[in-house]
Amino acid sequence: MKLRDLGEDRLLDQLLPHLPLGKTLKAFEAGAGDDCAVVKTPTGRNFLVLKTDCVVEEVHFMSEADALDIGWKAMMRPLSDFAATSAVPQFALVTLVAPKETEVAWIKKLYRGLRRAAERFKVSIVGGETSSTRGPIVISVSVVGFVEKNRCVLRRGGKAGDDLFVTGRLGGATKRRHLQFAPRIAESRWLTKNFSIHAMMDLSDGLGVDLPRLVRASKVGFKIELENLPLSRGAKIDNAISEGEDYELLFAVSPGDRSRLQRGWKKKFPNLSLTRIGSLNRKSRIENRKLPRGYVHFQQPG
Amino acid sequence: MKLRDLGEDRLLDQLLPHLPLGKTLKAFEAGAGDDCAVVKTPTGRNFLVLKTDCVVEEVHFMSEADALDIGWKAMMRPLSDFAATSAVPQFALVTLVAPKETEVAWIKKLYRGLRRAAERFKVSIVGGETSSTRGPIVISVSVVGFVEKNRCVLRRGGKAGDDLFVTGRLGGATKRRHLQFAPRIAESRWLTKNFSIHAMMDLSDGLGVDLPRLVRASKVGFKIELENLPLSRGAKIDNAISEGEDYELLFAVSPGDRSRLQRGWKKKFPNLSLTRIGSLNRKSRIENRKLPRGYVHFQQPG
Repeated sequence: MKLRDLGEDRLLDQLLPHLPLGKTLKAFEAGAGDDCAVVKTPTGRNFLVLKTDCVVEEVHFMSEADALDIGWKAMMRPLSDFAATSAVPQFALVTLVAPKETEVAWIKKLYRGLRRAAERFKVSIVGGETSSTRGPIVISVSVVGFVEKNRCVLRRGGKAGDDLFVTGRLGGATKRRHLQFAPRIAESRWLTKNFSIHAMMDLSDGLGVDLPRLVRASKVGFKIELENLPLSRGAKIDNAISEGEDYELLFAVSPGDRSRLQRGWKKKFPNLSLTRIGSLNRKSRIENRKLPRGYVHFQQPG
Repeated sequence: MKLRDLGEDRLLDQLLPHLPLGKTLKAFEAGAGDDCAVVKTPTGRNFLVLKTDCVVEEVHFMSEADALDIGWKAMMRPLSDFAATSAVPQFALVTLVAPKETEVAWIKKLYRGLRRAAERFKVSIVGGETSSTRGPIVISVSVVGFVEKNRCVLRRGGKAGDDLFVTGRLGGATKRRHLQFAPRIAESRWLTKNFSIHAMMDLSDGLGVDLPRLVRASKVGFKIELENLPLSRGAKIDNAISEGEDYELLFAVSPGDRSRLQRGWKKKFPNLSLTRIGSLNRKSRIENRKLPRGYVHFQQPG
């Protein structure tokens, strides 16, 4: 069987149960499969949070894209997973794999993009590697940081009855915005400071792929009010569900917090919309069908 | 200018001074350029240690190599840098970039190699990413761990007069051994537990490239007794100096510790040689010429 036929999610599912946890098994809070890996350390008061993500030429960016934008995106992708976990990123490692023919000027511009993104969130790039290749350029960024034990949010805490919210607007990101987005770290930190957020993730692959992940992890069902989806200018419901690259937050919170959340958000983030798009419920296959099945496209590159 | 014309060392030199350290500047002990990044954290008693490394098809391994060996090597490379720093590795993130045509059986074997290597050193693989590519396979492994503040060894602490030691034997590794080596973590931890090691690194690119790095970082000169180099079976002095991939430790320690070190080592590691290959001295260009200049090959792939 080829990688193509299996898809990334199922591959990771098959690989992960076998990953060694050794003596740190009990120290392990959430591993691969959630947005970040979250681990206990013997001495730390906080959880250690780890995430790696990569961008590949011709898969995540076109060769002619601006190197500054590519660097920005390469750093922002793992940082968006920190937002999903409500974690604070601190240190980054950058691996660049590029052909020997690559212009040094291009690489410097790429690093300017990486640095600009890192500085925006007070992240220090503390190390890196470069290697040559005969193939497309690969930029891999690993980020390490922390989250307070009582503010760590995973995908798996959603409860039946919870409201489902998304930040910002969905759809149309793949055209240009995907290279210039800013992770919702400030928003995520504000949420966990002021509310009990039950489950959260960032929308990188599209609501149609990502929501089922949150729901599966939380062992609940969901009901989405499609007519309430906050659409980007020019985007249709199809785009909002299936395109991905929005990097907005999707989270579950008790309906008891609804009005306080909506009022507080408007005051704190007047320029960013927050929309209740539906709710979680007891597992029900019929309800889940409301999100058209065709949109779930596990075989997409990336 | 192309990447080929500049070389990796000089590229990193140019990129690194500009890396943002932000508010963590003071927290920063050793960044890119040393074997690992070593950082202070606000709450930790120990330093946090970070390292990323990658292996690329046709650069670090041939396509027909055993996937088990490739996985082993991909994990062991960053772990060898932990040995160089006398740090304890704890958590690893794995990124796999592979064509869609890659056999899933091959990937599973690769992960078996990664897991086997991780288990050997009690490291937990806590996360990972996969991406498709149209090019060669890239496996990037990032490792996070710790080192006690008084046991952290960098490249830059060597003093004039220090003895220079290497573990094991050098040369001939590129044929097969490079896929199966074991990082000298136990040896490194024993060294810093019992001795004041002034400077240390692992020999990944060959003594001819690596020793000048340690010497530059320590701002000293060196004198190598070529006839004393511990050669692998069948290897010549040329191989020991220029081939690389030995992953043995090179370290500097006061000559006052010499006899206690040599006695203690023999008892603790009877099956691994420890050889005094020379000494550090005050910076002197003439002495440095004793290591034939032609062996310093900054343009090598990897």
